[in-house]
Amino acid sequence: MIVGVVGGGQLARMMIPPAVALGVELRVLAETKGMSANLAAARVGDYRDAETVLEFASEVDVLTFDHEHVPQAVLRKLEGKGIAVRPGSGALQFAQDKLLMRERLAELGVPIPDWEAVAEPAELDRFISSHGGTAVVKTARGGYDGKGVRVVSSSVEVEDWFAFLAEDGHGGHLLVEEFVDFRREIAQSVARRPSGQVLSWPVVESLQKDGVCAEVIAPAPHQSPRLSEVSAEIAVEIAEGLGVVGVLAVEMFETLDERVLVNELAMRPHNSGHWSIEGSTTSQFEQHLRAILDLPLGPTGIRCPWTVMVNVFGGSTERTLDESYRAVMEDYSLAKLHNYGKEPRPGRKVGHVTVCGDNLEDAAFEARAAADALSR
Amino acid sequence: MIVGVVGGGQLARMMIPPAVALGVELRVLAETKGMSANLAAARVGDYRDAETVLEFASEVDVLTFDHEHVPQAVLRKLEGKGIAVRPGSGALQFAQDKLLMRERLAELGVPIPDWEAVAEPAELDRFISSHGGTAVVKTARGGYDGKGVRVVSSSVEVEDWFAFLAEDGHGGHLLVEEFVDFRREIAQSVARRPSGQVLSWPVVESLQKDGVCAEVIAPAPHQSPRLSEVSAEIAVEIAEGLGVVGVLAVEMFETLDERVLVNELAMRPHNSGHWSIEGSTTSQFEQHLRAILDLPLGPTGIRCPWTVMVNVFGGSTERTLDESYRAVMEDYSLAKLHNYGKEPRPGRKVGHVTVCGDNLEDAAFEARAAADALSR
Repeated sequence: MIVGVVGGGQLARMMIPPAVALGVELRVLAETKGMSANLAAARVGDYRDAETVLEFASEVDVLTFDHEHVPQAVLRKLEGKGIAVRPGSGALQFAQDKLLMRERLAELGVPIPDWEAVAEPAELDRFISSHGGTAVVKTARGGYDGKGVRVVSSSVEVEDWFAFLAEDGHGGHLLVEEFVDFRREIAQSVARRPSGQVLSWPVVESLQKDGVCAEVIAPAPHQSPRLSEVSAEIAVEIAEGLGVVGVLAVEMFETLDERVLVNELAMRPHNSGHWSIEGSTTSQFEQHLRAILDLPLGPTGIRCPWTVMVNVFGGSTERTLDESYRAVMEDYSLAKLHNYGKEPRPGRKVGHVTVCGDNLEDAAFEARAAADALSR
Repeated sequence: MIVGVVGGGQLARMMIPPAVALGVELRVLAETKGMSANLAAARVGDYRDAETVLEFASEVDVLTFDHEHVPQAVLRKLEGKGIAVRPGSGALQFAQDKLLMRERLAELGVPIPDWEAVAEPAELDRFISSHGGTAVVKTARGGYDGKGVRVVSSSVEVEDWFAFLAEDGHGGHLLVEEFVDFRREIAQSVARRPSGQVLSWPVVESLQKDGVCAEVIAPAPHQSPRLSEVSAEIAVEIAEGLGVVGVLAVEMFETLDERVLVNELAMRPHNSGHWSIEGSTTSQFEQHLRAILDLPLGPTGIRCPWTVMVNVFGGSTERTLDESYRAVMEDYSLAKLHNYGKEPRPGRKVGHVTVCGDNLEDAAFEARAAADALSR
């Protein structure tokens, strides 16, 4: 069994341990040398170049991804040659284009925030004023701007995006969504095989800092009775409705009035599922491999009452993660360390720590303290 | 942090996952191409050749081993060049020569079976007759014969070994030991850092088939109250007395009269410790890396009441392990599979499965059934 992974980031890296256990040969097409998944890097090349990806993919049984940026044209060319691309182009288009995604989720009847595709500032301002004066604007596709998400109260705040669309010549739309007054963000991961089997993990709570996932608690604490049922139903419906193969992570808002609204999708292992490495019988990385190889999925139960995952960011110093190990291992012995092997730059996600325990407060304290000490 | 591993077998392979997590760069000196630890193979070469090992070791921070066969002369040359060899030659000599080991354990006052170094058949026969007519004869060093262990009732049964010693010109001795009437075999693993910290895992029961470890139950069931205390004390005493750095596995007999006698030693991760990958907060492979890097050791507590590990052997068919996956994953979903990536030959150890659970009988049933289905 040979699995090819396009992209050499930490998600590809974290597929290595389960690949070693299962006897799967993992081959990574990395963007550059010395990336996170360097150990499994079989080739370095540009994932936007059809020839490069085609050549790489011709020697694997199944092709999967560390990210969702491989262009549709390349994906379709691969599929045309009979290569098993998982997830396929048909599913990935919804992860690549947020407008397509919103349209499709609306068709499926999945609960989502109010939204609209807007081509002009006037349309956007009408939406804003009819939704309480604030809205969230997103570029449909990544790459226009850093993050592509802004909370605005006037179309002036996304002038540059409209200007870009105009320049583009294609017209095109921005996505505007209601600003959801949420109680918290939750995330629901599921895995689906080509033959149809779908399994979901427990729903988790995800805490964001500056728009980036900082911390995950599994399962989501203080659950209203039906939360886990509803969130799993939604994620399974999306996986089936969009024809996803592999892991699908659905980020959702839990609103103050206890509704659940779908925010974003990721069709790959996701930061919100890293807890599963220690916290579940089957980690999201093992499950992704099983799913894309169409092997029976593993059980997704929890291995301890609480698992807390905290991201580690590059700090202000230039020291690498492992230079902090001695103190952290001494002081926070229950923290399992995950080093992505990246050069630490301030604010860059360079690793994560996970603590499992019977007591949520203790586990959270230990995980946060360990991550903090590593992030300095 | 760069760790060099001499030997490309499954023990080196199973160091890859914790190395990936900790951000340790693992480089393996493999005997041939396509071995178990192929993914981390940095070089192929003969570990008996000092130049080869020296060149390999010159680019790593710490050198460790997949096996104990690197000759003393090579080890001492490495140490002479200032390379951090862990465990060192001084400790490894006791794993390489069973007579030396017996002498040293006797000096330390560790409980061992009655033994003697015998140079002639007459000496052996005297030992046999004074020990109830049966004894266990072992060659001091591997390589004379397949396994180097025979249960005999007369010196005639090891004629060939005596003949070999005579040919050798060096004289030399065989090791003879009393045949211990044991209740069961147990194994105790510990890890020790150069700076002195030592931690032990719970003692486990190990079931052998045809002289090979077939199954391990952690912790050892039906323990007499002091068993785990005594076995840990013995293993710590040996680790300190022999100056072991890294993981030390001590195989012991629990006798019918509830004594514990040391049988064999291994100065590396050992088959009897594979359960710890899922069953303990810190696996023996992670702990070995921590120990040889002189990092604080991780907690060695259990992650579930019972963990059962069963080895998978090559069967009579030529199909590879993964061709059985579909059925096994379907039927025995709790079994965690570990594929060593070896060509299956009848009787060859090609993997293992582990099941964790609250109920020992259920876990053992599932693990045995899964291993059996994979071994066909």
